[in-house]
Amino acid sequence: MSQAGSPWITNAWYVACTPDEIAAKPLGRQICGHRMVIFRAGGTVSALEDFCPHRGAPLSLGFVRDDTLVCGYHGLALGCSGHVASMPGQRVKNFPPVRAFPVIERYGFIWVWPGEADQADPALLPHLEWAESAEWAYGGGMYHIACDYRLMIDNLMDLTHETYVHASSIGQKEIDEAPVKTHAEGDQIVTSRMMDGVGAPPFWRMALRGAGLPEDQPVDRWQICRFTLPSHVMIEVGVALQGRGGYHADPADKAASVVVDFITPESETSHWYFWGMARRFAVTDTALTDTIREGQGKIFSEDLEMLERQQRNLTLYPDRRLLLLNIDAGGARSRLMIERAIAGVPELA
Amino acid sequence: MSQAGSPWITNAWYVACTPDEIAAKPLGRQICGHRMVIFRAGGTVSALEDFCPHRGAPLSLGFVRDDTLVCGYHGLALGCSGHVASMPGQRVKNFPPVRAFPVIERYGFIWVWPGEADQADPALLPHLEWAESAEWAYGGGMYHIACDYRLMIDNLMDLTHETYVHASSIGQKEIDEAPVKTHAEGDQIVTSRMMDGVGAPPFWRMALRGAGLPEDQPVDRWQICRFTLPSHVMIEVGVALQGRGGYHADPADKAASVVVDFITPESETSHWYFWGMARRFAVTDTALTDTIREGQGKIFSEDLEMLERQQRNLTLYPDRRLLLLNIDAGGARSRLMIERAIAGVPELA
Amino acid sequence: MSQAGSPWITNAWYVACTPDEIAAKPLGRQICGHRMVIFRAGGTVSALEDFCPHRGAPLSLGFVRDDTLVCGYHGLALGCSGHVASMPGQRVKNFPPVRAFPVIERYGFIWVWPGEADQADPALLPHLEWAESAEWAYGGGMYHIACDYRLMIDNLMDLTHETYVHASSIGQKEIDEAPVKTHAEGDQIVTSRMMDGVGAPPFWRMALRGAGLPEDQPVDRWQICRFTLPSHVMIEVGVALQGRGGYHADPADKAASVVVDFITPESETSHWYFWGMARRFAVTDTALTDTIREGQGKIFSEDLEMLERQQRNLTLYPDRRLLLLNIDAGGARSRLMIERAIAGVPELA
Repeated sequence: MSQAGSPWITNAWYVACTPDEIAAKPLGRQICGHRMVIFRAGGTVSALEDFCPHRGAPLSLGFVRDDTLVCGYHGLALGCSGHVASMPGQRVKNFPPVRAFPVIERYGFIWVWPGEADQADPALLPHLEWAESAEWAYGGGMYHIACDYRLMIDNLMDLTHETYVHASSIGQKEIDEAPVKTHAEGDQIVTSRMMDGVGAPPFWRMALRGAGLPEDQPVDRWQICRFTLPSHVMIEVGVALQGRGGYHADPADKAASVVVDFITPESETSHWYFWGMARRFAVTDTALTDTIREGQGKIFSEDLEMLERQQRNLTLYPDRRLLLLNIDAGGARSRLMIERAIAGVPELA
Repeated sequence: MSQAGSPWITNAWYVACTPDEIAAKPLGRQICGHRMVIFRAGGTVSALEDFCPHRGAPLSLGFVRDDTLVCGYHGLALGCSGHVASMPGQRVKNFPPVRAFPVIERYGFIWVWPGEADQADPALLPHLEWAESAEWAYGGGMYHIACDYRLMIDNLMDLTHETYVHASSIGQKEIDEAPVKTHAEGDQIVTSRMMDGVGAPPFWRMALRGAGLPEDQPVDRWQICRFTLPSHVMIEVGVALQGRGGYHADPADKAASVVVDFITPESETSHWYFWGMARRFAVTDTALTDTIREGQGKIFSEDLEMLERQQRNLTLYPDRRLLLLNIDAGGARSRLMIERAIAGVPELA
Repeated sequence: MSQAGSPWITNAWYVACTPDEIAAKPLGRQICGHRMVIFRAGGTVSALEDFCPHRGAPLSLGFVRDDTLVCGYHGLALGCSGHVASMPGQRVKNFPPVRAFPVIERYGFIWVWPGEADQADPALLPHLEWAESAEWAYGGGMYHIACDYRLMIDNLMDLTHETYVHASSIGQKEIDEAPVKTHAEGDQIVTSRMMDGVGAPPFWRMALRGAGLPEDQPVDRWQICRFTLPSHVMIEVGVALQGRGGYHADPADKAASVVVDFITPESETSHWYFWGMARRFAVTDTALTDTIREGQGKIFSEDLEMLERQQRNLTLYPDRRLLLLNIDAGGARSRLMIERAIAGVPELA
């Protein structure tokens, strides 16, 4: 799976959009440098290059009719596989097809494979237990962020920034005082931090209330960040009443969640950030889902300016060497795993 | 008339603006890559390079006084021919002149010649019968469009797009079902389409009403697009009551118009689009002129997004080959005529 | 003091900001191509490169705590000299320092030295009598202008533009009719113009009223523009009742001011323009200070469009030679002084 030269892995599944984004009409979206039109026709979701072979018009300005995507300029109609199905007054048999990208709809997301179609293997899709089980509730959103997708991976694999960027919601002094451990675990890079006997910051007080637990008592708090290729970061986070076993405490004594982060490169300096939270407590409380989504959306928007301004600084000073500290190990090892995959280096499992 | 290298013909008359645009003050406008200031002084319209020889200030920020254009920065005053007429406290006899572009005011437009001044021949101005005859009424407007001017020529020389882009006004299914014919006719490329016994779409219903004709009966509809150098497209359009001779029907039985399109390049990826409609029915009905202008303005604005997004796609994929179908012949032959003129190839008349 | 290659003198004091701009939080500002964060900690103002050595985040998004500037991303804390003072969980002894720029706070401004720190000499700061004396009152403001800072110097060293750009406030016909004289005077380029027995234009009528003098009588008016390195222009302006000695008239018979202009390059095509007026009449009248600041701010905003459009013209036509007239001598000699300083040519004092 070598794609030397590109700054991202192309032979991989990325979250392209959510079903609601294509409910009303085709969606134009650039993924890993490829402009795509994503649309649902006859129940099936497809992704084609967003370029009509006739005159180069963007197909995303077109519409779906009779299971085809019709170009909104002169009516060339494409089947889901990208072949030209018809065009008024034309024999289209020998028209060149439009490139189609493999697509899977699962777990509440539309996934695309921007690389070689014959390498696309549905088995490579990550398994998301929380998306298929009634024991979990999920809510999330999406942001467009003008920075290299790897800066977002760095951000998520080093949560010391919470103390500074998210001081009023999830940050607390104990985060950057607690030692961080980073290691490989199968196909994952894992970086974790345990904070025992701390006060719960505002976001977790809200979660404790939602879980029916007291919010004023000391808690054991944990953060376990798990990176997998190409650019997914799942973060197990939670608080348990102090001394009940922390991460391993009985579900009745804790509020535990997974922060879900799918990071989809758009260009070398921008990406689509799909964020959300899957939780195992109060799963039928949809009002709580909304409250958490709103809170999380606000928190993640705080990263936006920092990341975009960081990108501008790095663009301005491309040769400047940065520090590589212990807290950066999670991001650094994740980047290394990406680089090795791009270069086609076999992983030592 | 060879201007090899430039993407447009420079030795030609282009519509620069309408008189109302220079009524109150000088106008800065870029035409074929040249920044010009266009102004009226002492009854005469002039076009000079929009660059004061003193310090490079744009002359279009200045004002007209005593038949001169006065720079708004330090008061250098220019005559219509571009010579420096005066400057406070200076002897200007040896000041270099500003480049002047030949100008003609005719047919309700200001025309400029962006190429070699000594080649500018008023006889090369097109003759516009509808602009000088009481048998015609005219109304129009102007749009700035961020795409290569030739994409607009393509657009106008292939009206199958009406079915898709203008579905709610002038589009109808029969357009792209009717065969299109393209041929050269003297110095024109002509592409035409006849649709007999069809229902009139909304715009033409309005026109039929305006012409005092029934709007619910089947009509014979025609579209005859005529391209002439450098980039003018006049489109004879109309509907006649079915079986009365169509295009050749008696004026009392038809609503016939000319869609007027003057396409003036600004840069390689933008142009000024002067559009309008000249009609031979109900010519004294100024309210109808307004109604048609409004309707046409709305219709032509529908092309804007498509053309600008098409341009962005083509800029992104500059080497992608497009299809060349029978419906594209009008645009393709018009482009060929432009290329031959730029290369200085003599036309085979 | 040679800094060949750069379009500005780097070994010099420039106005970076005013104290109110850093009162609430650190300020990010680019000066002579250097992105700086300017902040007050423990009473002292510092300027550091706006780039955290950890991950490249802009330090100007951080905050001041315990006399250090704390990066708002992961908490790296910097001392005023740019050394890393601390970081949570890190030993910072060997962390590389951030570049610090010499800073002086004086005369109501924060001054920075963007060049070599070991050349920074406080004695090179200009002496501003009006800023330290109770005999003067001062009011001013700041504009960001998208043009080469030297176009602003040209503008201020040739006030004939007042007749055109500021026709309704300080312009009058007599300005460009009065001869202008330019000469070197020590380390200054001086260009001056005397207009005797003229009517006072609106701004000066307001000043005469403020000074308790009649506004309807003829006055002797003067403008003496003084350029000093690197890019300061102080303009002595005023009007005296006619025949009382003009510039040398008794203070009771005149309204005299200094137009203060500190011009700080940002990039090759933009600068920060600190403007103001110091006056010797009615110095305790703070309402008059506000009125003058408002009037001056309005007048100087009239230069904005002209200068920015001039810049765009010059960028478009980089090889076009401009005229060099007697009125341009002040700007031309000032530019020459800058060029010689950049090239390290010793001044012939």
